[in-house]
Amino acid sequence: MSKKYVYSFLEGNRDMRDLLGGKGANLAEMTHIGLPVPQGFTVTTEACNEYYHQGKVIWKELRDEIFEHMRLLEKETGKTFGGASNPLLVSVRSGAKFSMPGMMDTVLNLGLNDQVLETLIKESGNARFVYDSYRRFIQMFSDVVMEIPKSYFDRKFDEVKEEKGVKADTDLSAEDLKEVVALFKNIYKEAEGADFPQDPHEQLIEAVTAVFRSWDNPRANLYRNENHIPHDLGTAVNVQSMVYGNMGDDCGTGVAFTRDPATGENNLFGEFLMNAQGEDVVAGIRTPMSIDQLKEINEDIYKQFEDVCHILEEHYKDMQDIEFTIEKGKLYILQTRNGKRTAQAALRVAVELVEEGKISKEEAVLRMEPNQLDHLLHPAFDEKALAEAEVIAHGLNASPGAASGKVYFTADSATEAAKRGEKVILVRTETSPEDLEGMISAEGILTARGGRTSHAAVVARGMGKCCVAGAGGINVREEDRFFIANGKQYPEGSVISLDGSTGYVYEGEVGTRPPELSGHFATLMEWADSYRKLEIRTNADTPRDALQAVAFGAQGIGLTRTEHMFFEGPRIKAMREMILSSTTEERKAALEKLLPYQREDFVGIFRAMKEMPVTIRLLDPPLHEFLPHTDREIEELAKEMNLSPETLKAHAESLHEFNPMLGHRGCRLAITYPEIAVMQTRAIIEAAIQVKKEDGINVHPEIMIPLIGELKELTYLEPIVRGTADKLIEEAGVQLDYLYGTMIEVPRSCLIADDVAEVAEFFSFGTNDLTQMAYGFSRDDAQKFINDYLEKGVFERDPFVTIDQTGVGSLMDMAVKLGKKVRPDLELGICGEHGGDPESVKFCHRVGLDYVSCSPYRVPIARLAAAQAAIEEEHGKTDHSSK
Amino acid sequence: MSKKYVYSFLEGNRDMRDLLGGKGANLAEMTHIGLPVPQGFTVTTEACNEYYHQGKVIWKELRDEIFEHMRLLEKETGKTFGGASNPLLVSVRSGAKFSMPGMMDTVLNLGLNDQVLETLIKESGNARFVYDSYRRFIQMFSDVVMEIPKSYFDRKFDEVKEEKGVKADTDLSAEDLKEVVALFKNIYKEAEGADFPQDPHEQLIEAVTAVFRSWDNPRANLYRNENHIPHDLGTAVNVQSMVYGNMGDDCGTGVAFTRDPATGENNLFGEFLMNAQGEDVVAGIRTPMSIDQLKEINEDIYKQFEDVCHILEEHYKDMQDIEFTIEKGKLYILQTRNGKRTAQAALRVAVELVEEGKISKEEAVLRMEPNQLDHLLHPAFDEKALAEAEVIAHGLNASPGAASGKVYFTADSATEAAKRGEKVILVRTETSPEDLEGMISAEGILTARGGRTSHAAVVARGMGKCCVAGAGGINVREEDRFFIANGKQYPEGSVISLDGSTGYVYEGEVGTRPPELSGHFATLMEWADSYRKLEIRTNADTPRDALQAVAFGAQGIGLTRTEHMFFEGPRIKAMREMILSSTTEERKAALEKLLPYQREDFVGIFRAMKEMPVTIRLLDPPLHEFLPHTDREIEELAKEMNLSPETLKAHAESLHEFNPMLGHRGCRLAITYPEIAVMQTRAIIEAAIQVKKEDGINVHPEIMIPLIGELKELTYLEPIVRGTADKLIEEAGVQLDYLYGTMIEVPRSCLIADDVAEVAEFFSFGTNDLTQMAYGFSRDDAQKFINDYLEKGVFERDPFVTIDQTGVGSLMDMAVKLGKKVRPDLELGICGEHGGDPESVKFCHRVGLDYVSCSPYRVPIARLAAAQAAIEEEHGKTDHSSK
Repeated sequence: MSKKYVYSFLEGNRDMRDLLGGKGANLAEMTHIGLPVPQGFTVTTEACNEYYHQGKVIWKELRDEIFEHMRLLEKETGKTFGGASNPLLVSVRSGAKFSMPGMMDTVLNLGLNDQVLETLIKESGNARFVYDSYRRFIQMFSDVVMEIPKSYFDRKFDEVKEEKGVKADTDLSAEDLKEVVALFKNIYKEAEGADFPQDPHEQLIEAVTAVFRSWDNPRANLYRNENHIPHDLGTAVNVQSMVYGNMGDDCGTGVAFTRDPATGENNLFGEFLMNAQGEDVVAGIRTPMSIDQLKEINEDIYKQFEDVCHILEEHYKDMQDIEFTIEKGKLYILQTRNGKRTAQAALRVAVELVEEGKISKEEAVLRMEPNQLDHLLHPAFDEKALAEAEVIAHGLNASPGAASGKVYFTADSATEAAKRGEKVILVRTETSPEDLEGMISAEGILTARGGRTSHAAVVARGMGKCCVAGAGGINVREEDRFFIANGKQYPEGSVISLDGSTGYVYEGEVGTRPPELSGHFATLMEWADSYRKLEIRTNADTPRDALQAVAFGAQGIGLTRTEHMFFEGPRIKAMREMILSSTTEERKAALEKLLPYQREDFVGIFRAMKEMPVTIRLLDPPLHEFLPHTDREIEELAKEMNLSPETLKAHAESLHEFNPMLGHRGCRLAITYPEIAVMQTRAIIEAAIQVKKEDGINVHPEIMIPLIGELKELTYLEPIVRGTADKLIEEAGVQLDYLYGTMIEVPRSCLIADDVAEVAEFFSFGTNDLTQMAYGFSRDDAQKFINDYLEKGVFERDPFVTIDQTGVGSLMDMAVKLGKKVRPDLELGICGEHGGDPESVKFCHRVGLDYVSCSPYRVPIARLAAAQAAIEEEHGKTDHSSK
Repeated sequence: MSKKYVYSFLEGNRDMRDLLGGKGANLAEMTHIGLPVPQGFTVTTEACNEYYHQGKVIWKELRDEIFEHMRLLEKETGKTFGGASNPLLVSVRSGAKFSMPGMMDTVLNLGLNDQVLETLIKESGNARFVYDSYRRFIQMFSDVVMEIPKSYFDRKFDEVKEEKGVKADTDLSAEDLKEVVALFKNIYKEAEGADFPQDPHEQLIEAVTAVFRSWDNPRANLYRNENHIPHDLGTAVNVQSMVYGNMGDDCGTGVAFTRDPATGENNLFGEFLMNAQGEDVVAGIRTPMSIDQLKEINEDIYKQFEDVCHILEEHYKDMQDIEFTIEKGKLYILQTRNGKRTAQAALRVAVELVEEGKISKEEAVLRMEPNQLDHLLHPAFDEKALAEAEVIAHGLNASPGAASGKVYFTADSATEAAKRGEKVILVRTETSPEDLEGMISAEGILTARGGRTSHAAVVARGMGKCCVAGAGGINVREEDRFFIANGKQYPEGSVISLDGSTGYVYEGEVGTRPPELSGHFATLMEWADSYRKLEIRTNADTPRDALQAVAFGAQGIGLTRTEHMFFEGPRIKAMREMILSSTTEERKAALEKLLPYQREDFVGIFRAMKEMPVTIRLLDPPLHEFLPHTDREIEELAKEMNLSPETLKAHAESLHEFNPMLGHRGCRLAITYPEIAVMQTRAIIEAAIQVKKEDGINVHPEIMIPLIGELKELTYLEPIVRGTADKLIEEAGVQLDYLYGTMIEVPRSCLIADDVAEVAEFFSFGTNDLTQMAYGFSRDDAQKFINDYLEKGVFERDPFVTIDQTGVGSLMDMAVKLGKKVRPDLELGICGEHGGDPESVKFCHRVGLDYVSCSPYRVPIARLAAAQAAIEEEHGKTDHSSK
């Protein structure tokens, strides 16, 4: 028997989404549970794929199968498609597995032609309704099937309304609409050079073809790329017998959510219009009525609809988004699907469904999209205020949240203004580590250059500050203290507002509302924690970050970057002296100055983290990052170091690297200058001893050596680090346990992980670097072509956002297996941006890590993703597809 | 039974080098074959390791075992160690598995003290000989065992000679020497605060300890690091009964090679002194005589020695380096080993040993160190001329060969001078791709900065030109047209000479001799080719390079870098226009200009290579490498392109990359600008068609996509490349086969090699990049710490010189296995620097590649190494240790 490509609604069910698409599966399901669904059939997604396989033609067998189902539908409805009496009209709608903008929309009233028109007028006695249906059909068919611009028809329709002196389309008479039909047919003829097609079967095949064709249009392709939907799913086509909301004032059509999609409140929420069809409700031609008003118009229908809502929610165990039509006082359901909702609503609905006994806690945890939590953790603009604000620029939504303040263009001026009590927005062409203090002082950061992984974006996300990055339309003139946006100058002190969740920049101050972290949020997170197996740590370089992360549920620090500590005030001077020393003795003297600062930092962090583990990475970046850039800075430093500016400059230049990412950094610094590792170890251990003695806290430091690629790097440093640490501990006479471990961030370390594990007590995967090295491109430089790669389908995802499981993931898997073989209790974690990406967190769970570490504001997201991973594993869910 | 740590010469043999060291094993072997070897015993290398294990002490059991062997030696010789009659004296010498400078040298006459002295005088009746022996012993023991500077003794000895008015030490009388002994004992007492030790057994243990201690001295450690000798081998100690060359004029001592170590000629070659001991021959006190002269002095002894030489050569099947002593007309052999020799000698000896039927061809091929061939392929300085030349600087021996010429400091001035017929040395701080033309024009290149893998070094090696790189002592002032070396200015036009094999730079012109490639060289290479399984290809970007490589035996081109072709004359302008185009149309127009040049290049290369395969890599480097740098260049280009200099500059700046190595390069260029790939494919295929039509040559182009990290990169480009190629071939109506393949040079491509092989018809490993990405450091930047790593023992070898088999090698192995699984006839090669490194070539053989590709001058080296790999595999030799 040949393959079946068409299913009647009676044959399908909700589990057949792959084959029938979401819409078709739900229409079939609703048919089964006895809801009033106009009958019809679905042409499968496999038919769509076969259409492309055959070279974009509807082959004969499919035609026959469709027509056969049309005959069955005629039988069922007692009507005849294109018939001389009791004619059957149908709607044709696309329906892929995932709802997708860009796909072909609806064609209503298909089957109408000049003859059927006459029959229908005669049989219904309602010429106005029939002409209205015909003009709609001609417009929709022309638009979505033949691609004749909709605006041609809209313009003509408006002209007629104007001519007739009416506002609402319902005020047009049958005669008027007859005129419209004639005009519309003319537009068609002009555009296509042929009369409007009169054969209903050909209309049908054309419409089905148009749906298939729309699967491959640019907008749909783009959407699939952006949402990681495979291109080979195909779309189904639903053919459904028409019911009419436009037959008079006892007819109507509407859409409703079973709960409020903005807040999640358990109330029907929706709109409808009487004597209307299809898109009228959203088209803004007439102002639709709230669903509550239906009660007043037809209490019985309202009750019926309420019942349907209850039934569907009970059945689908989720908030539904339902389309309905009332035909002469009878209710029909045209579609149901899980309703889209805001983060806040998603949270409330999930929690309340559990409270109502409709779903389990596990299900609630699985329902919440972890990334959505991000919106709840930051202040957001008040929606009303936002609607009135003037957009002056648009950049990347680099770090969520909302902030208003006065603009400043340098770290210093920003810091000073903040000290004066001003709310500050730091505006820079791009930021560098030296802007750190300014970023700390600011409410939000705006840059003209840089992507989602630029310095500004990464640091801002780490701090939970809002950031709009790479707003290409603005021109920042730091030295002249103004920026230009939208053709207007904004001098220092001008007030602007940033929406880091959308990337929009507004003029003036826009009111905000604070995040809400108790209530439903707390409840869901508590449930999540009860399933989660992964530990969630945070990346934190300051006590403040550490405390924020603990408030968000962090269970330790997975990464403290010691280098960030060296940029402030007198520290940077000592750091520069250290780097520019020409002898070991000079270097030691400079390090001696840095020691107290560093120790003090660690004391603060250890106190904040109590007895939780704190992983501290030794100095990592190439040294020239710390060097003075301007001539003035060089002169100042030269004076202090008793050197000529020329000497200093020459030394600084000698530190230049062609590829800093692949240069003298990480453990290589500690190996060439072991005294740096000694100083840092001293600072860590002395701080731990101090906190133990003064506060009685059993600190758990984990000393992390970065960028190991060769076992001997680790064994060379081990006696230096352990020697220093153990001596201090012995001298202090305290009990203090610490771990000696490494970052796994260059591919070679994964290949020799068994050897590395002989020495390292823990691995922390640095998947940013691992991604950079595995692919051979750097975050900073790859932005130039990654977008192009995404557009051209070379990449499905940006590997800096979500771990590349095939490549980087297999290196991780290798390292985990090799490491565990040698040291079964090896502690395994990940630090860096991927640690806060839900898909990546789930991968970390599956690959067998002990913890993930992410920036403080990603901690709740990671907690939820980790819980989902554990539940999915428990349920043996192995489908890791993205949607 | 406890472990045996001491072996009599009667117990050992030549196969026990690991345990007895080279010297000890050979002394035992010679004993076995009946040569006149003074008897003795060897303390094993294991004893040395145990000495360190025990905390640097000679433990009691070892003492006892040594003394037990001393008793056996007494028995055998009939003499007594420290005895009151017929006293036994011994020599103590170190002897590791590999001979190693920096290790403790010889102590002769050990066992002498004031009492033994008297006995010996009495018994020998030769007081002069005995005092001479004592003064030697005191000096040697003090120097090598107690580390009292040798110069203290030499100075005193010279004072005595002056006082006595004699020149030669043999002119000193017994009384004089008695005086010397007394003076030497005083020196000892002053330095040590104790009398010279009188107990022969304590003398012996001290000397053994000193040998063990010397294993760990800095010079020895450095030597082992440089020569990749493991640090845990340990050294043996040889204790041998003395024979005396200093008993009178019928005594003597000497060293000889069985063949000439400079030329390989089959004649005895050596020197000796009568009435002398130990180092006298090489110390220059008296002028030694040539070994031929021994015939005149004592024809019988000469004949005996000649016999010994024949026996030893016959036995060891190699040229021997022999130490001997004549005591009262009797010949003793003190040591034999395989003689060190020049490359030329090595070649001749190996070939002649085969001709003499002493060794097989296989053995001859195995004997030749492949890297030694390099010296034979380049001109070298005449040794006499060299001895008189003044060294003005020393840098890295970056590319072998010798050259003299006038210095020029820019590519342009060098090129012009060469056109005038001058011999040119290009001197630069460092070179960049724009210097290419100047490098081509020059005889040799000298740079102040950069390592063995710097641009200058890599390009020079590729061209077979001599290069001294990173001569830190010179200061190059390109703009002032002079350089400073050794405190002196050398203006443009000064004549200097470079020795790229040693790194020395000389003032003035030094005479050279040309390479000799026929004769023994041709014979050995022919033998090598008969064993070799790997194909040897070359990296060549020009017809000239290609022809040179074919002359050296290349069987194809493994890498043509198309980018090098874009730097000359009008090409660079078109290239810059292409890069700075702002639309696809502009870019296509610029590419249209480049097409004829590129096609012409390929025509030349295809003609040179005949029907051999030619692998061509599409454009690889980051585009900004081609951009203008100076303001003048920018202005010129702007004029030509009808742009403002500011616009052009801004565009050029926008191409800046933080890490060019990890930037927009390789296949990423072809994906964002497919028109580049189209132009290059056209140039390749059109050239192939032209050569086929005009010359009837069946060209075999292999189109290589660089830097693949993701399968879809390759599948995206496939229709673009194949589409272009197939259309041209069809239009031309010719039969033309080409391959579509890829470089495997980022770690991720190894991990997904099975997928890649579905599309790629060949893999070419780019192990430079693979090394960079696997370790996460770039060639350019890593030089800053790699030396430190080598010194500190973190690296045993520079992974840019020899493939890191553990890391990079395992990635290659993975890729080979995955690739072959999917496509059994997948063509596998390697291109880049490693392809000419013998150890790496052998690894490529073992891992299963089909070919290696290297620069033309490395082709013979690769041929030899490949032959050795095949022979070693055949013999099941799995010991891949370095020596």
